[in-house]
Amino acid sequence: MSNIKDIAKIAGVSVTTVSRVLNNERYVSDEKRNAVLRAIEITKYQRNLNAVNLSKGKTHLIGVVVPYSNHPYFGLLIEGISIEAIKKNYKLVLFQTDYQKERELEALEMLKHKQIDSLIICSRICSLEVVEAYLEYGPVILCEDTRNTRISSTFVDHYKSFTIALEYIYKKGHRKIGYCIGRSSGTNSLQRNLAYKDFLHKYNLPYHDEQIIKKCSYFEDGERIVNTLIESKNRPTALLVTSDQVAAGILTCCNEKGIVIPEDLAIISFDNQPIAKYMKLTTVEMPIKEMGQKLLHQALLNEQSQTEMSVKLIERQTV
Amino acid sequence: MSNIKDIAKIAGVSVTTVSRVLNNERYVSDEKRNAVLRAIEITKYQRNLNAVNLSKGKTHLIGVVVPYSNHPYFGLLIEGISIEAIKKNYKLVLFQTDYQKERELEALEMLKHKQIDSLIICSRICSLEVVEAYLEYGPVILCEDTRNTRISSTFVDHYKSFTIALEYIYKKGHRKIGYCIGRSSGTNSLQRNLAYKDFLHKYNLPYHDEQIIKKCSYFEDGERIVNTLIESKNRPTALLVTSDQVAAGILTCCNEKGIVIPEDLAIISFDNQPIAKYMKLTTVEMPIKEMGQKLLHQALLNEQSQTEMSVKLIERQTV
Repeated sequence: MSNIKDIAKIAGVSVTTVSRVLNNERYVSDEKRNAVLRAIEITKYQRNLNAVNLSKGKTHLIGVVVPYSNHPYFGLLIEGISIEAIKKNYKLVLFQTDYQKERELEALEMLKHKQIDSLIICSRICSLEVVEAYLEYGPVILCEDTRNTRISSTFVDHYKSFTIALEYIYKKGHRKIGYCIGRSSGTNSLQRNLAYKDFLHKYNLPYHDEQIIKKCSYFEDGERIVNTLIESKNRPTALLVTSDQVAAGILTCCNEKGIVIPEDLAIISFDNQPIAKYMKLTTVEMPIKEMGQKLLHQALLNEQSQTEMSVKLIERQTV
Repeated sequence: MSNIKDIAKIAGVSVTTVSRVLNNERYVSDEKRNAVLRAIEITKYQRNLNAVNLSKGKTHLIGVVVPYSNHPYFGLLIEGISIEAIKKNYKLVLFQTDYQKERELEALEMLKHKQIDSLIICSRICSLEVVEAYLEYGPVILCEDTRNTRISSTFVDHYKSFTIALEYIYKKGHRKIGYCIGRSSGTNSLQRNLAYKDFLHKYNLPYHDEQIIKKCSYFEDGERIVNTLIESKNRPTALLVTSDQVAAGILTCCNEKGIVIPEDLAIISFDNQPIAKYMKLTTVEMPIKEMGQKLLHQALLNEQSQTEMSVKLIERQTV
C-alpha cells in the first residue's frame, strides 16, 4: 500500500503539498493539485482515516464491556447501544471479559491511550475507585447506581424493583419466598440482597441461605434450580427469578415434573423479554434496550449524569 | 490533553528528541532524556497508541458484521470469535447491520481505510462480487460456502446437513415434511432449499410452498408457527427447524395445545445449543463456537482458505 511519501514522489511535489491537497487546503496551484490527484489515482492510495482521526483526537469508537456475548440480557443491551451508535456514526469495540479483571483493565487502558473515545461497562468487576481514576481520560459509563460517585450511569434501582416484586408476592399470601440470581456479587445483586433482607425483617420472616439460588443465568439452569428446590428443607412457595429465560426454564422443568404453577410454586421474573409474554410470566419489566440507547448518549457527552430508569410490574399467570 | 509539542516545550528540547525518548531510541543525552521524562510526568502525557499503530500499519482491530446482537446463534458465534481475539490480543469492532446494505458497506469501507485489519461477515447482504472487490484491502472472511470464489470462509455445508435431517425423518416414516427458516435468501438458506427440493424429487414427493415457514428466528416465533401448521391444508407430520430456540418455542406451544411430540408432529432442529439438550430435541449439531474461533484465525492470516466444518445428528426425543 502506498503512503503519502510515494504520492509526493510520483507527483513530483513535497509531502506538505500532498497533505494540503488531501485536506482540501488552499495555497496549492491547480497544476500541483492535479499532479497529486493523478498520483493518488495511480497508486490507489487510500487516505488513512486513522491518521485523519488522529489529527482530530477522535476515533469514533466506543468501547463496550460485557461479561458474555451469548446472554440474552447483554445481547439486548448491546442491541440498544448499537442502534444509537449507528445513528450517531460511532462504532463499537466489544470487550468480552468473562469477569476477568485484567480484561476490564485492558478496556480502560484503551481509553487512556485514546484508542476509544469512551467506554460503557455493562457489568463491572473492577472497583469503583479504579473506574473513577480513568475518568480523566474520557467518559466511562456504568449500568448500575453510581449516585455516590463522579461516574455517569443509566440504571434501574434494583432495591426498589426487588421490593415491588416481594411486596406483590407477599400480598398474594406467600411467606416462604426465595430467589434465583446470576452473579451474587456486583452492585445490582447486593442491592437485591439488601431488599430481600429488609423485606424479611419488615415482616419478621426467617432468613434461609438455601433459599437464594446462585449462578442462574440461562434457560437450561432451570433443571438444576427445580432439583435444588425439591431437595430443599425449607422449600419456598414463591420464587423471584432475575431473568425471564431462567424463569422459562424453571417453568418448563416444573411442567415435566408435574409441579403446578402458580399453585405449587409461584414465579415472578424480571426483564419482560419476549419469552416472558410467550410463557405468560408475571414479570417486572426492565427497559433494557432503552438503557442501552441511553448509555450510548451518555458516552458521547463529557458531563456527569446519572439516570434512573423506572420499572413496571406486569401481571400474567405465574403468581 | 498535552501533545508531543507541549512536552518538547516544557522540556526545552526538540520534538524529535521527545519522539526519540518515547521510542526508546539512542542518541539522546541523559540530561535531555530526563528533562523529557519529567515533562511527561508534569503533563501526564499519554502516548497515543493510535499513532504507534499508525506507524506500524496495524490497528489490532477486527470488524465483525452481524445482523442482530440479541440472537442466540450470532451471540454464540461472537463468543467464539471473542475467545480467540482475546488470546491473540485483538479487539473486535461490532457492526450490527439489520441486513441493511449500507451498514455492511460501511464495515467494508473501514477495512479499505485501514481502520480495521480484517473483517468477518457472519451473515451477508452485499453480493459476493462486492465483497471480493474489497479483498485487496485486507482479509474478509465469510461464514458460508465460498469455494467458487477467492474469499476465505468457515462454513457448514447446509445442503449436506439438511439432507442428513431429511433422510433421517424419511426413514422414520414421514412423507409430509416441512421446514422453518429465518431469512429465506442468503447462501445458506438457498442451499437448504435446494436440498429440500432435491429430496422431494428423489422420493417423488409433492412440493407445497406453505410447508416452508419463513422468518423463524426466536423462541417466541413458536406460537405463530404452530398456528400456521394448524391452519395448513397440507399439514406436515414432521418439521425441520433451523434453530434450537425456535424448536423449543414450537415444543412449548404444542404442549399447551395438546399436540403430542413426536406422535402428532416430529421436530428435528439445528445447532445443538444447550436448550436442545434441556428440551430433549433431536438436533443436527453445528459447531458454532468453533466456527467463531476458526473465523478469527482466518482473519489474522493473509492467505485464502475455505474450511468446511462437519455436523452430527444427535438423536433425542422429538422424532
